[in-house]
Amino acid sequence: MSILAVGTVAFDRIETPFGKRDRALGGSAMYITMASRFKCNDTRLVAVVGNDFPLEFVEDMRSRGIDLAGLEIRKDELTFAWGGRYHYDLNNRDTIYTDLNVLSSFDPVIPLAYKDSKVVCLGNLDPTIQLKVLNQVEKPSIIICDTMNYWIENTPEQLMALLPRVDCLVVNDSEARELSEEANLVTAARKIKNMGPKIVVVKKGEHGALLFADDTIFSVPAYPLEDIQDPTGAGDAFMGGFAGYLSGCAEINQDALKSALVYGSATASFTVEHFGPEGLYDLTTPEIEKRIGAFRQLTSIPV
Amino acid sequence: MSILAVGTVAFDRIETPFGKRDRALGGSAMYITMASRFKCNDTRLVAVVGNDFPLEFVEDMRSRGIDLAGLEIRKDELTFAWGGRYHYDLNNRDTIYTDLNVLSSFDPVIPLAYKDSKVVCLGNLDPTIQLKVLNQVEKPSIIICDTMNYWIENTPEQLMALLPRVDCLVVNDSEARELSEEANLVTAARKIKNMGPKIVVVKKGEHGALLFADDTIFSVPAYPLEDIQDPTGAGDAFMGGFAGYLSGCAEINQDALKSALVYGSATASFTVEHFGPEGLYDLTTPEIEKRIGAFRQLTSIPV
Repeated sequence: MSILAVGTVAFDRIETPFGKRDRALGGSAMYITMASRFKCNDTRLVAVVGNDFPLEFVEDMRSRGIDLAGLEIRKDELTFAWGGRYHYDLNNRDTIYTDLNVLSSFDPVIPLAYKDSKVVCLGNLDPTIQLKVLNQVEKPSIIICDTMNYWIENTPEQLMALLPRVDCLVVNDSEARELSEEANLVTAARKIKNMGPKIVVVKKGEHGALLFADDTIFSVPAYPLEDIQDPTGAGDAFMGGFAGYLSGCAEINQDALKSALVYGSATASFTVEHFGPEGLYDLTTPEIEKRIGAFRQLTSIPV
Repeated sequence: MSILAVGTVAFDRIETPFGKRDRALGGSAMYITMASRFKCNDTRLVAVVGNDFPLEFVEDMRSRGIDLAGLEIRKDELTFAWGGRYHYDLNNRDTIYTDLNVLSSFDPVIPLAYKDSKVVCLGNLDPTIQLKVLNQVEKPSIIICDTMNYWIENTPEQLMALLPRVDCLVVNDSEARELSEEANLVTAARKIKNMGPKIVVVKKGEHGALLFADDTIFSVPAYPLEDIQDPTGAGDAFMGGFAGYLSGCAEINQDALKSALVYGSATASFTVEHFGPEGLYDLTTPEIEKRIGAFRQLTSIPV
C-alpha cells in the first residue's frame, strides 16, 4: 500500500557530545519517508524547500525510492533550518535557532496521484495545515499524526478540531501529559482517545514506547545501545517504521499495531547510532529483521 | 530454599497527592520479606527496632509467615523513622525527616539458624554493615544487594570493598549512573559488573527494569496502572519478589533471572496500588500469577 508523509524537509545543525553536523539533511517528512521505505515501495513526500536546497539531498531521497513529486521548491526563498544542542545525557536538548523561512507560508497541495494514499502520516506541523491535508485525501486506511507542545499551548482549538479526524496520535510522554493534563500515562492516553484518536502511541525516548488501542496496552523498550550518537529524527523515524509496517498489513488489527510498534522502534534504533539520517541511508531490511529478533530476546518472558 | 533479608524495619510517614499515613509499617527488610513470601516459605528477617514498635506490627509480619527470630528489639531506644512527601507526578519525593534512632548503632548479628540461608538480600544499609552480614553467612546461592546515592557519595571505598562479594546489585537508574559515572545505562551496567557483581538490575520506576547478566539484557516494563497511590517500598518489594522467585529455582540461570525480574515487577505493582505495605498484606499467589499473565500480554511481540 502507499504512504503519504506531509511534514518538513530541513537543514539541521546538530551538536551532541559526540560530534556535530551543519546543514545536514533533516525534517519530519524526510525521516518518515526514509524510515518507511523498508516495508513500502510507494512512499510519497509532500514538503517545501527553498532554492538553497542542494540537488545532492534530493538525490539522497530519490535514490532511495522516495516519490518527490510533492516536494515544492520555492524560488527566492530559503529552506527551513533548525539548530539544536544535546546535553550530555542526550535526553534533553536546547534549540539554538529555528529559521522557519519557506515553512512560514507552507500550504501543502496534495498531488492528484497522492490522493488515494492508504497510510497518511502527518508530521509535526500547525494543526490547521494538518487538517487541510486531510481535506485533500480520499479514504485512507489510517491517519497517523504527530504534534508538539507548541501547538498544544498555542493552537489548542485547532488541535481539538483535528484530533477527531485522526486515527492514531503519536506523541512523546511529555506531550501526552500536557495535552491531557494528566501525569499518569494510562489516564493520559484514555483522555486523548476521548479527544478522537482510537489509537495512541506514547514515545518515551530511551524508555521505549507504549501503544494504547481499544483496551489493550502494549509496551516495547528502546533497544539498549551503548553507542548513541544523535537522537535527532528518532521520533520521526519511529513513525516512519511504524507506518511502513502498517502499509504492508492486509488488516490493521492489534497484532499489526504491536508489530508496527516494534518495527518503528527497531528502525529508530539505527537512526540514533549515527548522525542525522545517516544511519538510514544504507540500512537494509535484513538488518532491521535481525534487530527485531534481538527485541524478541530482550522482551520474551520465559515460559 | 531460604531467604535472609537484612535491612530496616521502620515507621514511615508518607504523603502522596492521594492521601497520607503516619507511623505506618515500613523499612527495606519488611518490604523484602513481605514480598518474597509468595515463593518462599522460609523467609528470615534481621533488623532492629525500638521499644516503641507496636506488637500489632510484629503480628502483621509473623502472621504472614515471616521468621522474626532475627528482629532485635532494643529497650529504651526508638525505632528508625522516615517521612517523605511525593510530588504530583509520584516520580520525585522530598524527605521530610530521617530519625535514625536505633539504626545508628545497628550491628546485625545473624542467628545461627540463619547462617545457611540460600538467598541473601542486603537491603539499603551502610556497606560496612552489609559486609559484616556477608562475613556471617555460609555459602549462599546468591547475594543480592541494594545501595543508594548516600553510600556512593560518602563511603565509596567501603562500597568498592563490598561489591566483589555481591552476585547481583539492584539499584535504580540514577544510582547506576552515579556509581558508574556514565549516562548510558548499558555502559553503566558494564562498568558496575567490572566492580564485582556479575548480575546488575537497574530499576527505572514507571519505566520498568533492566537485567544485565553475562552478555544478555532483558527488559520488563512497569505494569501500567491508572490508580497509583504510593510508590513507597516498591523497589524493596521488587527485590523481595525477585529474590523469592530465585529461591524456588533449582538453578539460577538466565531464564530464572528473567522470570524473577517479571515476578519482582508484578509484586511491586501491587505495592504501589495501596499505601505502604497494605497492598502486600492480603495479596495471593494466584493474583500475582494473573498479573504475570498480563505482563506477557503487555510485552509479547506477535509472531
